[in-house]
Parts: sequence; C-alpha cells; structure tokens
Amino acid sequence: MAMAQASVLENFETPLRLLSFPLPERIEAGAALVRTEMAGICGTDVHIWKGQLPISLPIVLGHETVGRIEQLGEGLNRDWTGQPLRVGDRVTWNSTTSCGQCYYCVEKRLPTKCPHRRAYGIGYRCDEPPHFLGGYAQFHYLRPRTNIFRIPDDLPTESVVGAGCALITAIHGIERTGLAWRDTVVVQGAGPVGISALAVAKSAGAAKVIMIGGPRTRLELAMRFGADHVIDIGEVTDPQGRISAVRDLTDGYGADAVLECVGLPLAVPEGMEMCRDGGKYLVLGHYCDAGTVLFNPQVITRKQLQVFGSWSSEPRHLKTGLDFLRARQEEFPFHTLVTHRFRLDQANEALAATARWESAKSVIVPA
Amino acid sequence: MAMAQASVLENFETPLRLLSFPLPERIEAGAALVRTEMAGICGTDVHIWKGQLPISLPIVLGHETVGRIEQLGEGLNRDWTGQPLRVGDRVTWNSTTSCGQCYYCVEKRLPTKCPHRRAYGIGYRCDEPPHFLGGYAQFHYLRPRTNIFRIPDDLPTESVVGAGCALITAIHGIERTGLAWRDTVVVQGAGPVGISALAVAKSAGAAKVIMIGGPRTRLELAMRFGADHVIDIGEVTDPQGRISAVRDLTDGYGADAVLECVGLPLAVPEGMEMCRDGGKYLVLGHYCDAGTVLFNPQVITRKQLQVFGSWSSEPRHLKTGLDFLRARQEEFPFHTLVTHRFRLDQANEALAATARWESAKSVIVPA
Amino acid sequence: MAMAQASVLENFETPLRLLSFPLPERIEAGAALVRTEMAGICGTDVHIWKGQLPISLPIVLGHETVGRIEQLGEGLNRDWTGQPLRVGDRVTWNSTTSCGQCYYCVEKRLPTKCPHRRAYGIGYRCDEPPHFLGGYAQFHYLRPRTNIFRIPDDLPTESVVGAGCALITAIHGIERTGLAWRDTVVVQGAGPVGISALAVAKSAGAAKVIMIGGPRTRLELAMRFGADHVIDIGEVTDPQGRISAVRDLTDGYGADAVLECVGLPLAVPEGMEMCRDGGKYLVLGHYCDAGTVLFNPQVITRKQLQVFGSWSSEPRHLKTGLDFLRARQEEFPFHTLVTHRFRLDQANEALAATARWESAKSVIVPA
Amino acid sequence: MAMAQASVLENFETPLRLLSFPLPERIEAGAALVRTEMAGICGTDVHIWKGQLPISLPIVLGHETVGRIEQLGEGLNRDWTGQPLRVGDRVTWNSTTSCGQCYYCVEKRLPTKCPHRRAYGIGYRCDEPPHFLGGYAQFHYLRPRTNIFRIPDDLPTESVVGAGCALITAIHGIERTGLAWRDTVVVQGAGPVGISALAVAKSAGAAKVIMIGGPRTRLELAMRFGADHVIDIGEVTDPQGRISAVRDLTDGYGADAVLECVGLPLAVPEGMEMCRDGGKYLVLGHYCDAGTVLFNPQVITRKQLQVFGSWSSEPRHLKTGLDFLRARQEEFPFHTLVTHRFRLDQANEALAATARWESAKSVIVPA
Repeated sequence: MAMAQASVLENFETPLRLLSFPLPERIEAGAALVRTEMAGICGTDVHIWKGQLPISLPIVLGHETVGRIEQLGEGLNRDWTGQPLRVGDRVTWNSTTSCGQCYYCVEKRLPTKCPHRRAYGIGYRCDEPPHFLGGYAQFHYLRPRTNIFRIPDDLPTESVVGAGCALITAIHGIERTGLAWRDTVVVQGAGPVGISALAVAKSAGAAKVIMIGGPRTRLELAMRFGADHVIDIGEVTDPQGRISAVRDLTDGYGADAVLECVGLPLAVPEGMEMCRDGGKYLVLGHYCDAGTVLFNPQVITRKQLQVFGSWSSEPRHLKTGLDFLRARQEEFPFHTLVTHRFRLDQANEALAATARWESAKSVIVPA
Repeated sequence: MAMAQASVLENFETPLRLLSFPLPERIEAGAALVRTEMAGICGTDVHIWKGQLPISLPIVLGHETVGRIEQLGEGLNRDWTGQPLRVGDRVTWNSTTSCGQCYYCVEKRLPTKCPHRRAYGIGYRCDEPPHFLGGYAQFHYLRPRTNIFRIPDDLPTESVVGAGCALITAIHGIERTGLAWRDTVVVQGAGPVGISALAVAKSAGAAKVIMIGGPRTRLELAMRFGADHVIDIGEVTDPQGRISAVRDLTDGYGADAVLECVGLPLAVPEGMEMCRDGGKYLVLGHYCDAGTVLFNPQVITRKQLQVFGSWSSEPRHLKTGLDFLRARQEEFPFHTLVTHRFRLDQANEALAATARWESAKSVIVPA
Repeated sequence: MAMAQASVLENFETPLRLLSFPLPERIEAGAALVRTEMAGICGTDVHIWKGQLPISLPIVLGHETVGRIEQLGEGLNRDWTGQPLRVGDRVTWNSTTSCGQCYYCVEKRLPTKCPHRRAYGIGYRCDEPPHFLGGYAQFHYLRPRTNIFRIPDDLPTESVVGAGCALITAIHGIERTGLAWRDTVVVQGAGPVGISALAVAKSAGAAKVIMIGGPRTRLELAMRFGADHVIDIGEVTDPQGRISAVRDLTDGYGADAVLECVGLPLAVPEGMEMCRDGGKYLVLGHYCDAGTVLFNPQVITRKQLQVFGSWSSEPRHLKTGLDFLRARQEEFPFHTLVTHRFRLDQANEALAATARWESAKSVIVPA
Repeated sequence: MAMAQASVLENFETPLRLLSFPLPERIEAGAALVRTEMAGICGTDVHIWKGQLPISLPIVLGHETVGRIEQLGEGLNRDWTGQPLRVGDRVTWNSTTSCGQCYYCVEKRLPTKCPHRRAYGIGYRCDEPPHFLGGYAQFHYLRPRTNIFRIPDDLPTESVVGAGCALITAIHGIERTGLAWRDTVVVQGAGPVGISALAVAKSAGAAKVIMIGGPRTRLELAMRFGADHVIDIGEVTDPQGRISAVRDLTDGYGADAVLECVGLPLAVPEGMEMCRDGGKYLVLGHYCDAGTVLFNPQVITRKQLQVFGSWSSEPRHLKTGLDFLRARQEEFPFHTLVTHRFRLDQANEALAATARWESAKSVIVPA
C-alpha cells in the first residue's frame, strides 16, 4: 500500500506534525487524485490553528492548492468549464462544493450558503480515508463533484496560489457590491484580500482607488497594483485622521464605495464614515468571528448607505479569476505575492511567517 | 396688519407657547399662503422638543400638514403633478425642497441628501418673517419651489395626516430595499413608520408580514392593516426569543427582508439575525441619533446580508403615497390612526400624548 | 403486466389516438409513478398538434398535470420544498428539470436555458418505456430528479391546473421585468398567460392594470381578477386606437410596464408604443415562433426602453405560484378558469375547445 | 454693434452659407459668451443637413464645441462641478439642459426625456438673437442654466472634441446596460460611438471586446483602442457569417453584451443573435429614424434577452467623460480621432468629409 506525507494539525496552537497516510487504492467514479505542486497559506489557516473556528481535528490544512492529476476516477474527463481533463494536467479547484438542490442552492440562488458545503483544508478529518483532503500534503484527493479547473500553460502556478482564495473572495464581494464604472473606491486592508479587491476595482474602471493599510511593503505592493493613493495606518494612526484623508481625496464627499478587507470590527464604523452619502460599503474581511464593536446604526440611515456582505465564492468566480489572472498578469502580477517558499516539513514555519505578516504569501512546495 | 397664532417652541423641554405673528402682507412669486386644517404630531417632534436635534430656536413645529390655499403668489398655478391650483384647494406638501442642481441632486441622484434642504417645522426660525413655516399654527407659508399636492376630494384629510411623513418614509425605504413579490417580511416597530411599512409591504405582494412591537393596541391596528403574525415585545421580552419566533414562522431560515422602524440601536443586531442568509435589512427608524450598540459585523459577511439606509423622501414618494392612500383606503384605513385631536392651544397635550404612545396619531386642528 | 391508457399524438394535425402501454414494472431510485387526476390543455399543445414545434413523434401531450403518488422509487421521500412525500399524496411538478451543472445552470445562473432540459408532454417519445411521460394519460411517470411539489389539502386541483404553466411563466417573466410598486401596467392578451400576468401585477401592487384582449368573456374574467380597465380588441380594432386609449389612461405618458402575452409579432411594436419613456416591455408570449413583423428599432433608443424576454420557469416559481394560489384564492380564483372538462377518450374535443378559444381552460379528467 | 460670423444651414441639402450676425450687447444673468476654439462635426449633422430630423431652419449646426469664456453673465462664477469659472477659461458644455421639474426630470428620473430640452446646433433658429447657438461659428452664446465644464489644462481640446457627443452617449448607454466585470462584449459599428463604446467597455473590465465594422482604417483605430478582435464587414459580408464569427470567439455561446452603434435597423436582429442566452443588447445608434426591418420578436423570449435603449446623456456623463479622457489619454487617445481640420468658411467640406466617412472626426477651427 502506497503511503504519502501530510502535515497534520492534531491540536490547536500546537505544532503541525508530519504524518504518513495510505494513498487511496481506488479512485471513486468522478473523483481524482492530484500530486500537490504548491499549497498556499491563507490567513484563515492561522485563525484555524489558533482554534478560532469550531472544527473537528485532526485535519490537513490548506485550501488554496495547485497540483497535477495523478489518477482520474471513472467518468471524470472534463473540467468545470468543459475542457478535457487528462492525467498530468495542472489543476486547481474550489475548496467547497454546493449540493445544487437545497433551499439556498436553487430557491434563493445563494450556493455559498448551502448547508452541505464542507471545505478542503478545514472541514474534513484526516484520520479517515481518503485522508488527503487538504493542501499541506504530497497528494490531494478530489472527491466526486469537486469543481476542477485545468490551468492554462501560460498561467504560472505562482499566480494561482499567489491570488489564492483572496482573489475569488474579492471578485464575489465586488460583484455583490456592484461597483460602477469610474467610481471612487477605498480599500481598507492591504493583505491578500485587499490587494485582490484593489486589482478587481482598478480593472473594473474605478476612477481612483485609495488603499488604507500597512506595513509599508504592502502599500508598495498596492502601488505596484495600481493604487492611486495609499494611507499608511502606521502613520495616520487615528480613525478620524484616516476619514479626513479620504474625504480630502474625494472632494469632501467620501468615496462611492468602501471595501472592508481587514477583519477587525473597528474597521467597520470607520469605513462607513468614509462613504459618501448613498455610497456602498462591503463587509468582506469578516470570515472569522472577531468580536464586537460599538456601532451607531444611524450612519446607515443618515448616509443612505448600502451595505453588503459576501461569503466565500462560487465556481464561476474561480473561472473568471483564472481568466483574469492570465489576461492581466503584467498589470496585476499576483505571482509576485509568493515571497516565501517552504518544504512540507516546514509547514510550521510557513504558518508562522503568515501569522507575523512577514510574507505577502507563504507557500508550501511539497517536492 | 393681520395677525395669526402659532404654537412656538422657544426652549427645549419647556412648554410650547401660543404666540401671534403678522401674516405676510405680500406673497412672493411662486409662494402660497395656506390656512391650516390639520397638523400631525410626529414622533420626531418629541425628539426635537427634547433637544435631540441640533437646531436653532424658536420654531413652529409640525411637518405633516394639510391646509387650504388662501393666497397664491404670482406664477403658481399648478401643483407638483401639473394639476391646476386655485385658492380654496385643499393641499399638502413636502416639508423639504431640494435644490435640483448640486452634487447630490444631479450627479448622484440623491436629492434627499441635498445640503440645501431645510424642513418646515424643523429648520426655520419663526422670529423672522414669514414666521409661519411649521404646522402648529393657523396658517402656513409655502415658500417658492415648495412641492405642493392638491388633495383629491375623495381622500379625507385624516388619511393624509394619519399617514403623515411615516408613509412616505416607508415608501422610500422599501423602494431602496427592493422587496420582491411574495417575500417574507418582518417589521420591527409598530409605530406609524412600522404600520406604514406593513401597509406598503402587504400591498407590494409580501407573502407574509410579521409585525414585532407593542403595545397591544398597536398590534391590533397592525392586524387590521393585514399583519399575518404579531410578536408582542411585552410578551416575548428577550431578543433571542423574538429571533426564534421569527425563524419558526419562516421555515427556520429567517425572513427575506427585515424592516427596522424602531429607532433604537438594539433593534439592529437583533433584526439582522432575523434575516435569512442573503436577506435584506433596512435601517429606517434612525432619523435621530439614538446612540450606539455592541455589534458584531461578522453577521453581514456570514449571512451575506444586504443592508440599506433611507433618509426622508422625495416628492415622487408623496405623489405615490397620496395615490395609494386614496386607492386602498378600505384595506389600509390610515384615517383611523387619527385617534386624538387637539386645539392649537393644546399643542403641549398633543405632544405629550404622542410621547406617551397613548395615541396612534395625535393631530392639531387649529380653528 | 399491468397496462394503462394514454391519448397519443402519432402524426401532426391528425386526431390523437387512445393507446395502451405497459406500466413500468419497476420504479427507478428517485422516480415515482403518479395516477393522473387532472391534465390541463395548454395553448402550446395546440401549436404542437399543428406541427409548429420541431419534435419527434409519437408523444403523450400534457405538461400541466396533477396526480396522486402511486409508487415511490427508492430514496424519494421528500418533495422539492423538503416536505415528506408519501404514496397517496396529491402532487404536481415542473415539466422540465435542469442539469444543475452546465454553463447556463451554474455559470450564468439561467437554468431555463440548460441545454439538457426535456419537457414532459413535449420532449419524450411514448413508444419506448416508461411510455407515460405526458399528462393525457391515466398515469404519469416522474423520472429521477423531477421537481415534485406536494399540494396542500386546502388548494383544489382545479386551481393548480387552472393556473397551469401560464402562472409560472408569468411569475418568471414579471420577476425578470422587475415591476415597481404602484407601477401602471398594460397586459396585452387575455389568455391564461395574460390573466396570470394580471394577477401577479395586481398582487404586486400595480396602481393600475389595463388589460387589452378579447373575447368579451375573457375580459369579464380579467375584471373579476382585478383589471382596472379593459380594452376590447373587437371594439378598438386598430393599433393606433389602442395606443391612444392607453395614453389616455396614463396621463398621456404611456404605462410604466407593458407585458406582451399574445404571441403575435404585431403586438410587439404596438406594445412598445404603449410604454412611457424609460418604461419596460416584456416579450412573454413568444414561446413558439410566430414569424416576423416590420419593426423600427428607433423606438427603443428614443423611448429609452428596457425590454425583457423570459422563457419557461424554474422550480422556485412553481413553489411561489402554489403558495400564491393557496393564499389568494378569493381574490384570484384560478379554479374558475377550468370551464370545460373532458374524459381521456375526448382528448381531441379538449384540444379543439382550446384551439377555438371556447374555454378559459379545458382539462382532461382520466378517471 | 460687433458682428461675428457663423456658417448657416438655410435649406436642407443645400450648402451652408457664411453669414454675419450681431453679437449680443448684453449677457443675461447666468449666461455666457464663448469664443469658439473647435467645433466637431457629428454624423447627426449630416442627417440634419439631409433633412432627416424635423427641425425649423435656419440654424447654426454644431453641438460638440470647445471655446474660451469671453464674457460671463451676472451670477455665473462656477462650472457644473463647482469649480470657479473665469473669463479666459477653456470650457465645453452639454448641448441640452433639462428643466429639472417635470414628470421625466423628477418623477421618473429620466432627464434626457425632459420635453423642455432643446439642443444647441439643432433646436434653435439663428435668425433671432442671440443667433449664436451652434458650434459652426466664431462665438457661442451659452444660455442661463447651460451645464458648463471647465476643461483642465492637461486635457487637450482635441481630446474633448475628438470624443464629442459620441463618448457621453456611449457612457450613458453602457450605464443603462450594466456591463459586468469580465463580460464578453461585441460592438457593432466602428464610428465614433462604437469607438467610444469600445473604450468604455475595455476600461470597465470587459474580458474581450469584438469590434464589427469598417472600413479598415477604423478597425485599426479600434485595435489601437484595445479591441481584442475585429470583424471587417467588408470581408465578412453576410450577417450569418458575422454571427458565426462571434460565436466562434465566445465558446459557441454568444457574447454577454452586444452594443449596437450603427444606426441601421438591419444591425438589430443580427446583433441579438450574437448575444448568449440571457445576454444584454443595447440599441444605441438609433438617434435618427432609419426605418424598419423584418424582425422576429421570439428571439427575445427564446434567448431571455435584456434589451436597452439610451437617448442622449446627462451632465454627469460629461463630467465623468472628461475625467476619463484626462486620466486615460494614453490608453484611449481620443485626440487622434481629429484627423481633418477645416476653417469656418470650409464648413461644407467638413460636412462632406464626415458624410463620406473619410475622417475619423472632422472639426472646424474658426481661427
């Protein structure tokens, strides 16, 4: 029986451990086995490691993964877009699959809220077969109905993992917000989601994008991605100062749209004040529960705001995201986000680098 | 020089005083003088009396008024809808007029946020001519460019004042929210705005409207206006119980839309939990600043909410509101809201009845 | 081997023939066998009989059917809404099922355009098992993945069949058009789709619905369903006269929305002229190809129209439709549309009555 | 009394004649006198010259004009955006002004359909003072309430006139259509409106823009403006071939959005077939009445199309357009469209060059 390695989270706030599991002997119909090429470390992985999500252990972390098809189950011969799928193809996939039949999937057309979704790298215990259901491993098993995408040859693996789940999260969130052409946009937060939101907003015709965040290296990255102005939270340390700075940059009115990509509750009342009256506010960074904030709801009435939330993404966002990454590599060089590479046995160092905001994006290359 | 009486707010939290002012000797071109028939007492008047709005005194309160044209200024011969306007006509009007030329009026098409708006009964001092710029008085001066509406003969004054600014506020708010046909709707708050929101939602095809509020008499009114279910806050006193009650009435999912018509910050986090995932939440009751609440913004992300604010209303909402009142009087008997009538010299009693939630709607009948 | 009867269309424009086929001996997992209670005759059936749709014969016509569960295949124990499903339950179902996986189903969220859809009563030959895939028969086989709805006890079969596919077509079309509360609406065509569109528009809060059509009996039905005005095409015979009549009823501007439920190309340019500038036009009646018309596209630019098409419907529309039928039976008595009943061996007479516009709705009761 | 020259259209299809008129002796309050720097020749001018618009002669043609403020009437000291306005400033303006008070302006928020609009260069006779109400003249009088925009110093006059009314027409039309980020877009027509639509679509994030038109020089211009594919109507001469070409470029489905910028009725049914099911179609090119076409409306139902019309533009589109021109000059070099310059006494040659499609854009420089 062939064995392969995975880096396993057995207990919260405890180092991951490299373990061996048997590879599946038989691939189910519609499933696939993939050899991992590169696995991204997402900020969410750090939250999970700290125990901030109510999940069952042990698990193999990693939900932003690229690999090559090693084996294809019966009947699986096309990717999500209808392209042929063959052994050896380089692929990525959505970390979750919706059922396509429930109240949220078909009646409310909100598949991201399908109650049957479970995410690779988060929702599957690894002490049961097929074990390999997360990215921090030599292999990844793709269950039947996984939404798989063949990666075109001229799109580097680094671009796909560098964009990671941040890009598709941003695409979905901005779709729900509905930016208008030539809107003035503020992005709160210069992490991967913020950089992605910046890229999407700029490429959607925003007249001006103001990035608020830090540290400096990330703001430089933001400028490389087309930010028109940056506000360094290390320099402008009080919310009122940042609100004033945004107003100064928007003829005194505030921005047409403000996109929250921070994940800290304090960012929300601050950001709403950055909107012009009638403006839009997207709460995108709160995938995890980061607690409460004192909030005066009158701002929503008084400014006639429109506020949107967005959760995860759908396969169509990944399709669009891959097309976008490929078409606009020069303008939006997501591959440059991959600044730190680690071996599979260095998964703890990779997590730590992400936790310390050292890297734009840490990745694991299992080799 | 002809004189007339007005009930004047000279100092916050101090009884109104009946004063006499000279009537204007000359009506400007485009202006009109109206003899007041009935003036509504709005909950906002109570807030103003308490000093919760930053305005300059003395003023004549009252922004929900019906009167008869006494004099027409040169060139004013049509109402807002193009109907002929004559001395003796019974009319109502918007309490504010937008400039039609500023950034908010024409560039962002958000006339309710025009910075040049001032409201009758709120924003005009009465110690300067033309003095009569509020409803609690024998006469009302309508400045040039006021949006005046002739009231059709078969629409009682009680209906117009009974609906008051609450109805047009609700029409505007629900327009911004975008209820879908056969949505399940929760209305938080059984005051005039809540009753109006209920009427609009029912008549817009809501499959089910759940009214949450009190006291009992108001919930009975809500049932008369078509509420499918009522939740009495005097009986179900904890938020979690109300949230559960709503979920039980909505197949466990929550409502498609929740309309906040309370004005208390605590209602907002409670109401958001009453939404189904992907649902809509309208913050409509917060015209005044009622302070802060502990709020966890993750609910917006997690539930993919759409949250809307709406401020005041536009003339087109008043036009639609009057048409609606007239066409649907039997189903939505807004005239029955006028439960308490007062003479002009009883304005303090009228305010007090509103403040104590004794009346559905108190009105002043000057003569 | 048990046999049952079906009325079969063997050749276009030739009388249907009553044939016997063997009932399936085994119900597949997820499938069901239903004993037909009532089958509606749709105008489309007449078009099919005339050979105006490119389909393969022989078939059993009928795509608007109510029956009782006779047998349930393995694993089928809930209806589309999650209610338990048992032998003996009265049910209806969508005539088509989308694949849930293709470009149109998931990428463009347009399941009505799924290329894998085939309709009961239209798209299945009956000379192969399971034979019973249309309504004009004693039994109906429901293939796996059919969207089945249990009918509540207080909703008569006549209401469901009386509404038929017309109601869900109208619900879908009006959803796509997006009527606003208190819009003025014109409905072109007083057949089942037009009557349904009228019912949906009225219940969605239309301020005024003008029904254009004939014959007189149908216009009387329209008034029973709440039409505010009717224009009899037998009386006002020229398009310009009808356009003028609509303008007279809409302050000279034209209607906010015009809903075409006729199926004749000439109705389209006529109807567009009935829209106010900036109005909406729905092309709903053109399920079949009825040829061309001379059309000047400038009307779309000049009037800044928004024009929508809508094809068939989704299961969620049937769910909403059944809820609506049940909740609003008094106001919108769809059961009264069932004016003509026929035995299964009278299927030709049933078709003829529909073809001659004799009936509001003809139905077959196999018994 | 000072005199100045204008090129006057006295009779349709007859050469323009250079005439002298007295300059106004007094500028009304809110008005301005401008010295013409450059006047664009629009395709519509050719239509007017041919008598295809029902207007009253004589007129001074020209509705795309840049000039310098010569005199400012009392009270006019800010441009539409609130910037100070001084003698000597270089400005442009909307050719029409809406009343801001009628049914279309405020009730339906559709100011382009205000019945009180009259256009400079089209709707004003020049045989009455102030005579100078069109671009083909040494001076231009701007009536009170004209929407004037100061042109920033770093935006060349050629860019503004090169873009002309075509750009703002395209901005408005695409706003109404609502392109989604990464949509696949077809533009029918490579004239100024088509080139503008291309620029807007590309800058709004279209994944792919396919330009259909000719002659070759215009398609080369389209490529310079970022067209991903061009289809030369001189090469692919049959509609079916062009439809097939579009399908081949869109995975067989058709485009998400097709923008008609041709003005010929035949383009409309052809373009609708280029849409994917559920796609959008904009009828933008039909400002003039170009007659009828045989049209089968079933395409709208069958493909579930959304079809939009758009007429003229609002001042906010001109504001956005000027910002866009300035910000994206390198990517979208509208100034290069100005290929042919003429003196005022050569206005007939200028018109002829436009009529013959010789020029991308002809302009008059009065000197």
